[in-house]
Amino acid sequence: MGEIPMTDTGVRRTVLPGGLRVVTEHVPGVRSASVGVWVGVGSRDEGPTVAGAAHFLEHLLFKATPTRSALDIAQAMDAVGGELNAFTAKEQTCYYAHVIDDDLPLAVELVSDVVLNGLCRASDVDVERQVVLEEIAMRDDDPEDLVGDAFLSALFGDHPIGRPVIGSTDSIEAMRATQLRGFHLRRYRPDRMVVAVAGNVEHDHTVELVHRAFADRLDPAAAPMPRREGRFRPHSAPDLQWINRDSEQAHLAFGVRAFGRHEGEQRWPLSVLNTVVGGGLSSRLFQRVREERGLAYSVYSSVDTFADTGAFSVYIGCQPENLGEVASLTRGVLEEVAADGITDAECARAKGALRGGLVLGLEDSASRMNRIGRSELSYGNHRSVSETLARIDAVTTQEVSAIAATLLARPFAASVAGPYRRARELPAPVRRLVDS
Amino acid sequence: MGEIPMTDTGVRRTVLPGGLRVVTEHVPGVRSASVGVWVGVGSRDEGPTVAGAAHFLEHLLFKATPTRSALDIAQAMDAVGGELNAFTAKEQTCYYAHVIDDDLPLAVELVSDVVLNGLCRASDVDVERQVVLEEIAMRDDDPEDLVGDAFLSALFGDHPIGRPVIGSTDSIEAMRATQLRGFHLRRYRPDRMVVAVAGNVEHDHTVELVHRAFADRLDPAAAPMPRREGRFRPHSAPDLQWINRDSEQAHLAFGVRAFGRHEGEQRWPLSVLNTVVGGGLSSRLFQRVREERGLAYSVYSSVDTFADTGAFSVYIGCQPENLGEVASLTRGVLEEVAADGITDAECARAKGALRGGLVLGLEDSASRMNRIGRSELSYGNHRSVSETLARIDAVTTQEVSAIAATLLARPFAASVAGPYRRARELPAPVRRLVDS
Repeated sequence: MGEIPMTDTGVRRTVLPGGLRVVTEHVPGVRSASVGVWVGVGSRDEGPTVAGAAHFLEHLLFKATPTRSALDIAQAMDAVGGELNAFTAKEQTCYYAHVIDDDLPLAVELVSDVVLNGLCRASDVDVERQVVLEEIAMRDDDPEDLVGDAFLSALFGDHPIGRPVIGSTDSIEAMRATQLRGFHLRRYRPDRMVVAVAGNVEHDHTVELVHRAFADRLDPAAAPMPRREGRFRPHSAPDLQWINRDSEQAHLAFGVRAFGRHEGEQRWPLSVLNTVVGGGLSSRLFQRVREERGLAYSVYSSVDTFADTGAFSVYIGCQPENLGEVASLTRGVLEEVAADGITDAECARAKGALRGGLVLGLEDSASRMNRIGRSELSYGNHRSVSETLARIDAVTTQEVSAIAATLLARPFAASVAGPYRRARELPAPVRRLVDS
Repeated sequence: MGEIPMTDTGVRRTVLPGGLRVVTEHVPGVRSASVGVWVGVGSRDEGPTVAGAAHFLEHLLFKATPTRSALDIAQAMDAVGGELNAFTAKEQTCYYAHVIDDDLPLAVELVSDVVLNGLCRASDVDVERQVVLEEIAMRDDDPEDLVGDAFLSALFGDHPIGRPVIGSTDSIEAMRATQLRGFHLRRYRPDRMVVAVAGNVEHDHTVELVHRAFADRLDPAAAPMPRREGRFRPHSAPDLQWINRDSEQAHLAFGVRAFGRHEGEQRWPLSVLNTVVGGGLSSRLFQRVREERGLAYSVYSSVDTFADTGAFSVYIGCQPENLGEVASLTRGVLEEVAADGITDAECARAKGALRGGLVLGLEDSASRMNRIGRSELSYGNHRSVSETLARIDAVTTQEVSAIAATLLARPFAASVAGPYRRARELPAPVRRLVDS
């Protein structure tokens, strides 16, 4: 156990016996504290027969521990007005609490108890199965979420990265308590966890609290698991997925495979490209599709990043009768930027937008906790804000244009939800996104 | 023009000539600033023929001013990474920007220009009409939003409070530029506005910036408009609205008319009641419907407050085949609390939850700006956080139980969205919510 010196980031790190990493950051001026236990396990780690297990388990662990019922847990957190929740992603699961600083010991204690000691009782599995099925139904009623999941599935096929985190109705209906218990036992080991704490907190005191909460589970022989590298091998080519929905709007997502987290420094120019194409009110997509033509309310681009692959995509919701035109227009915007690159003015503005967004987005404890937890788990190191700002500043128009040309020449995957009963009812420009 | 001394709240207020109020609050430790121009006008102030005008206008003003195009506005804000947006509610409209502190002058300048000088050009009206129609379609595809709007309409009938802020497809299709221009001219007067600024800001400097931006529009003779009082006279009794949707889940909202903003101090016990019934993980609804039975993912209660009336309601999304059971169960929870009141333990826990939520929710500039802008416009005064905490602390179990008994004896309104083609296909317990 010992603190590891780091560059000037304000982040402090201690590795406890058993390879449990604790990272903290003091946020000046706040009276809150955020605690996150990050587990380096997500839906990507599931076998296909237990699709949705990581997320199901995340629900289940809150149902009971040997010393607390779900009601005890809920009451303890509600009594101090804190927030207690969790989320599951493709490569990690995070259990977190956000409280007033005085309640940090309670927050550490509750979150750790859930993560380490959550029971997987068969009776709870049956009740929580219904809740997860409701969550799937809710996702199905949210067309933006639905095409988002379908897009990653169209892009990555039946590779684990392509599967929805939430699983399928079939896999959830079939899930057994023993499978979830096994997943918990095998995967939730302290050497695969990071405890991230930010706010009005003090490092040594926080480490003590964490040490106490995890004491029984620390095997002195273990060391932190190395960061996830992955080695993405696609099983199939990007394709088109469509879902027939009796909805008012048609919803379209399309895009290409992009960079993995460890593929050099391409993330910065890609962030700039994303901002120029569809990141804000002055972006090409917002101006072309919404401001000039009124064809959509919601139109934007986004970047997903996994260890060894990623995605760059656009989303649009519009009247079904306009979908063909919107698909052509949007594709035109991407082709233009691939062919002609971006302008110096766009590059400068996008860098300003990223700079401002970064600074404004890091004022509260919860964002800081997220940043340091994610960095520790994904990279094993931390960048100071000024270092990140310097990376953004260093991006050149040429780099961004080069990345646009490379990425946007790749084959598109697309997903559509809307009132289309047959694939051939989809507008031709939508079908051509993938065919051509 | 002069600063008005206030009780110890940290909020400073200056009334400029023309009755324009400027309120500021310094938030220690942040490097951001939030600026909101609050206009005391909302959908409630529309005649039925121009339903949705307030919200349409809010969109339109961003399209152009005499000196800036929509693109100029967007580029100026994106270049500094700020956020520029607006929202329209039933009783007010707020235009706001969130920026790094150094960019405060730009933020004040842009937001003021949009609010005061936004043009209502006929060509922009036609493009933006499409965007608003897309927004209506998007709302229609979001069943939770849809039943929310339908619930207030079922509760307040064709009273202006009951109409959706966004208007209807018909009213938006019929809206003319002259109507919007007239609405802007008549309603957007500085004496009906509050400029609220919070963050790393200094009062006198902020007042100067605002004064400069509004200078041409300040009529020295005008004084601030008094706060909105209203005098709610229902046109009809609460009823049931249902919408046939081919959705995976059925969505139900139901509840009663509650207190107006100026009806004494009943808001504090009502907040406690809301927290006990459906405000958090330990609430009766969450425990009974989700934790014990797994019948829903999303279940909660909420309070709406207008000048002269309000609403207390519950929302649940569940499988259509469970809707009848869920309606009975939820109604049972409300009847129980009406008959037997709440326990001392529940009261204490709810007060803790409100306390924590209040403190945690006020750390950033944007929340502070919202709080002071809303207070100034709605009440014309400000409470310090410790004063609010004292009000919460003073609530007694008996007061909460008394309010539960009073409110929950009132007739329910209800709204449902789901796969029901005819009213008689709705489960009997849902129909009985309103019939009985």
